Amino acid sequence: MMAGPDWHTYLKEHQPRFLDELLDFLRIPSISALPEHASDVGRAAEWVARRLDSAGLEAVQILPTHRHPVVYGEWLHAGKDRPTVLIYGHFDTQPVDPLDLWQSPPFEPEVREDRVYARGASDDKGNMLVPVLAAEALLKTAGSLPVNLKFFLEGEEEIGSQSMRALVQQHRELFACDLIFSADGGQWAADQPSLSVARRGILALQIDLRGPDSDLHSGVFGGAVHNPIHALVQLLATMRAADGRIAVPGFYDHVAPLTDEIRARLSALPYDEEAYRASVGVSALQGEAGYTALERSKVRPTLEINGIAGGFQGSGVKAIVPSSAQAKITCRLVPDQKPDEVFRLIAEHVAARVPPGVEIETTPLASSPAYLTPIDHPGHLVAEAVLTRVYGRKPYLNYVGGTIPVLPIFHECLGVHTVDFSFGLPDERLHAPNEFFRLSSFSRGQEAYCRLFEGLAKEQTDS
Amino acid sequence: MMAGPDWHTYLKEHQPRFLDELLDFLRIPSISALPEHASDVGRAAEWVARRLDSAGLEAVQILPTHRHPVVYGEWLHAGKDRPTVLIYGHFDTQPVDPLDLWQSPPFEPEVREDRVYARGASDDKGNMLVPVLAAEALLKTAGSLPVNLKFFLEGEEEIGSQSMRALVQQHRELFACDLIFSADGGQWAADQPSLSVARRGILALQIDLRGPDSDLHSGVFGGAVHNPIHALVQLLATMRAADGRIAVPGFYDHVAPLTDEIRARLSALPYDEEAYRASVGVSALQGEAGYTALERSKVRPTLEINGIAGGFQGSGVKAIVPSSAQAKITCRLVPDQKPDEVFRLIAEHVAARVPPGVEIETTPLASSPAYLTPIDHPGHLVAEAVLTRVYGRKPYLNYVGGTIPVLPIFHECLGVHTVDFSFGLPDERLHAPNEFFRLSSFSRGQEAYCRLFEGLAKEQTDS
Repeated sequence: MMAGPDWHTYLKEHQPRFLDELLDFLRIPSISALPEHASDVGRAAEWVARRLDSAGLEAVQILPTHRHPVVYGEWLHAGKDRPTVLIYGHFDTQPVDPLDLWQSPPFEPEVREDRVYARGASDDKGNMLVPVLAAEALLKTAGSLPVNLKFFLEGEEEIGSQSMRALVQQHRELFACDLIFSADGGQWAADQPSLSVARRGILALQIDLRGPDSDLHSGVFGGAVHNPIHALVQLLATMRAADGRIAVPGFYDHVAPLTDEIRARLSALPYDEEAYRASVGVSALQGEAGYTALERSKVRPTLEINGIAGGFQGSGVKAIVPSSAQAKITCRLVPDQKPDEVFRLIAEHVAARVPPGVEIETTPLASSPAYLTPIDHPGHLVAEAVLTRVYGRKPYLNYVGGTIPVLPIFHECLGVHTVDFSFGLPDERLHAPNEFFRLSSFSRGQEAYCRLFEGLAKEQTDS
Repeated sequence: MMAGPDWHTYLKEHQPRFLDELLDFLRIPSISALPEHASDVGRAAEWVARRLDSAGLEAVQILPTHRHPVVYGEWLHAGKDRPTVLIYGHFDTQPVDPLDLWQSPPFEPEVREDRVYARGASDDKGNMLVPVLAAEALLKTAGSLPVNLKFFLEGEEEIGSQSMRALVQQHRELFACDLIFSADGGQWAADQPSLSVARRGILALQIDLRGPDSDLHSGVFGGAVHNPIHALVQLLATMRAADGRIAVPGFYDHVAPLTDEIRARLSALPYDEEAYRASVGVSALQGEAGYTALERSKVRPTLEINGIAGGFQGSGVKAIVPSSAQAKITCRLVPDQKPDEVFRLIAEHVAARVPPGVEIETTPLASSPAYLTPIDHPGHLVAEAVLTRVYGRKPYLNYVGGTIPVLPIFHECLGVHTVDFSFGLPDERLHAPNEFFRLSSFSRGQEAYCRLFEGLAKEQTDS
C-alpha cells in the first residue's frame, strides 16, 4: 500500500482549510477556570465533536462530567493485530488576564508571519488539532488507519482535570488501549526534537485570611486591629528561605536527591542560562541553592505564589485596614511527593502561624502527582524514530517541569503509560499574554502523527 | 437681638429640605482618588458653590488647583470687633470598593431609620453641609451673622490635600482669619461630645516590584525565575516585628515616649476594649506591645498595608510566575516624625532587601505631619461651652488617630490653629462599605454651629 505520498499531498493541499478551522476553534473562549465561560467550554466540546466526526472518526460522543466534558471518538477497524492507540489533548484554555498586555485580543486569533496568536493557540488547541488532521488525511486518502485509534480530548486540563479520575474509571472499557500519546506537551526547539520522560506534579491551593468584618479607616483603627494583609505576608514569607529552599517543614521529606544520571542528562542539554535569563527579561536568575536553572525548573519541587489580593488596588490612596486578603499557590511536585500530604503540610504550617484576630482558611484547588514514562517504553522508541526522521536529528531526553494531570490517572486506571508527542515550543508564551503557535509546527506535527501511526503499525507487525 | 428662637425655628422647619439637599449632594460620586471621577469632584464643587450662594454667602468662587478645586465663600459684615472665622470641610470622598458589600449603592443614598447611607455621608458631605445650613439659618432669620465667616471647602482631603499648600500660600489674604473650625472630624459618641486636641499625620506610599517581562508558566519557569510576589511578601514581612513594633530601622527615632499626662487622659476615657473588639468583628485585638488599643489607634505611629495585588486573582487556578506585584502602605505619624524622612527610611529599607532579578520602585503618594491644637486654645474654650450646652455633658479631651492634612498647612501659612467642630461618630463606617451619617447628628450639628457663632461673638465682646 502506497499511502505515504497520498496523505502527504492531502495535508499540503488542505493546510489553508486546516488553518481556517484552527482560527475558528481559537475564537471560542473556552476558559475552564471561570464559571462565566463554562458554556464556552461546552461549545468548544461541540466544535471538537463535529471535527472528529468530519475527520471520519466514529462513535463520536460528548461525555459529561461533574464540570467540563470529554470528547471521545474512535476508529477501530485496523484489525486485532494492530495496536489500539489513544490520543490525549485538551480544548480548554487558561484565563487571559492581564488583558492589556495582549497585542491582539486573545480570542480574535491573528496570523503574524509564521505564527497564530491567540489564547490556547499552542496550549493546546493547535496541538490538539494536529492528530485529528493526521487521522483525517489517512482516512480520506488510504480509507483506513494503520492502527486502531481513540481520541480522549478534555476540557479541564487547565484546572487540574479533577473530574477525570471518575470518568476514566467509569469508562475503562471505552478507553482501553495499548499505547497513549499526548498531543499536549512540546519539543525542545524548532529544529530540535525531544522525548519527555518525566513531568512534575502539581498542587494548587488558596489561602484566605479574614480580619475585621469590613474595611476599617486606618486612622481610626490602624495599629489596634490586626491587618490580614500583614498576617498574610508574614505567613507567605515563612514559606521560602533566603537560599530559595521551601521552608515548609516536611516539604522535602519525600524528595529524592537528584541522581547523577538525571544531572548528567540535564547537563548534556545545550542550555544557555544567559539566553534564558534574557528571554524572560530579568536581570538575574534565582532559585534553590545548589541547582542549575534547568534543574530548578524541571526536576526540583517548587512553591510559587501565583496571585495575591487584598484591600485597595485602585490608583492613589485608600487609607484602610482591609477586612480580608488572599493568596493562590501552586507547588510543582517531584516523584514520591504526595499532593495530599504536601497540602496538609502547608495548611498546618500556615494555621500554626496565624496571629490572633485573624481567621484562616486553606482550600485545595487541584492536584496531581508527578509522572514518569519509562525511557525504554515502546512508544518512546517509535516516537524517537519518527522525530529523528521528521526533524533530521535525534531527540534529546527531556524532563518537563509542567504537569498533565490526567497522565497518572490513565496509568492507574488503564495501566498504560503516556508518551508526549506534541509540537509546542517553550517560547510560545503558554499561560501568558500573546500566546502563539507556529504554523510550521502545526503542519510538521500532522506529518509526524501520520508517520507515528504508520510506525506503530510496523512496530507491532515486526514484534 | 433675639435671634436664638428664630434660627432654631428655621432649622426645624427646613430640615426636610436640608435632607433632600444632602441626598442630592451624596449622589455626586466625587471620588478624588480615581481619575475617572475627576469631573464628578468638579461637579461637587459646583454644587457646593451654588449651595453657599443660596445660603447667603458672598464672593463665592471655585479656586482651581493642580488637581481638585477649593470652594470659597464669605460673609464679612459682622464688624471689625467681631472675629473672622474660617470653616473647613471637604466634598470629595473615598473610593467605594468592595462594592458588593454595600447594602445600597454607595451613590444612591438611602435613609434607613435615623441614618442616611452613602459614601461620604459622614466623611464629610453631611458634616460639611452642617455649618453652611447654620449660616443660612442665621442669615435668613437675623439677616446677619454674629461673626465674620469664611468657608474653605476642598476636594482633595481623601488623597492628602497635596495641592493645598500652594493654594493657601497663594491666597493668604483671602483666607486670613482669627479662628478655624473643622467640619471634618467627629464626636466621641451620640450622647458624649469631645474636643480633639491632636491628630496623627500620614505618609502614603506605593511599592512596585517587577520580575519577568510577562507572566510565565509556573511549570516551565517556576523555581528558576524569581517571583515578584515572593519578593514582595518577604519585603513586607520585614516591616513589622512579631510584637507589633514597626521594624523599619529608624522609624521610632523621633517618636517621643508617651507622657504620663497623655496616658492618664486616654485612660480616663470610658473605653470598653471588649466592645471595641466585638464592634469590628475580630476574635482578638492586636498591636504594638506595651500599649492599650486606645493608645495604639490614637497616639502611636502605625504602618498598615492598605492593599496588595499581583498575579492571578480570578477564581480557580492559574499556574503562573507573575511579572509584577504591588503594595500600598500608609503610616500614621506622631509629632516630630517627618513624613519625608519616614518615606526615605522605608524606601531604603525595601531597596536594601530586593533580591536579584526583581526591580523595585517606591513612590510617595501623599503625606502630612501630625497636628496638635493647644488644649487651652480660645476656640476650644468656646467649643467646650457650646458642646456642653448642646449635649448636656462636658466634652472629653480626645486624641484622634486620623489625619486632616490641611490643618498643619493652615497653621504654617495662616498662623492659625484649627479646632475640630464636627458631628460624625466613630461607628459610621468611614472609608468602608455602608458608610452612614445620623440625621440626629445632622440637625444637632446645625444648632451647635449657630451657638458656636454666637458664642464666638460673645467671647470676643467679653474679652
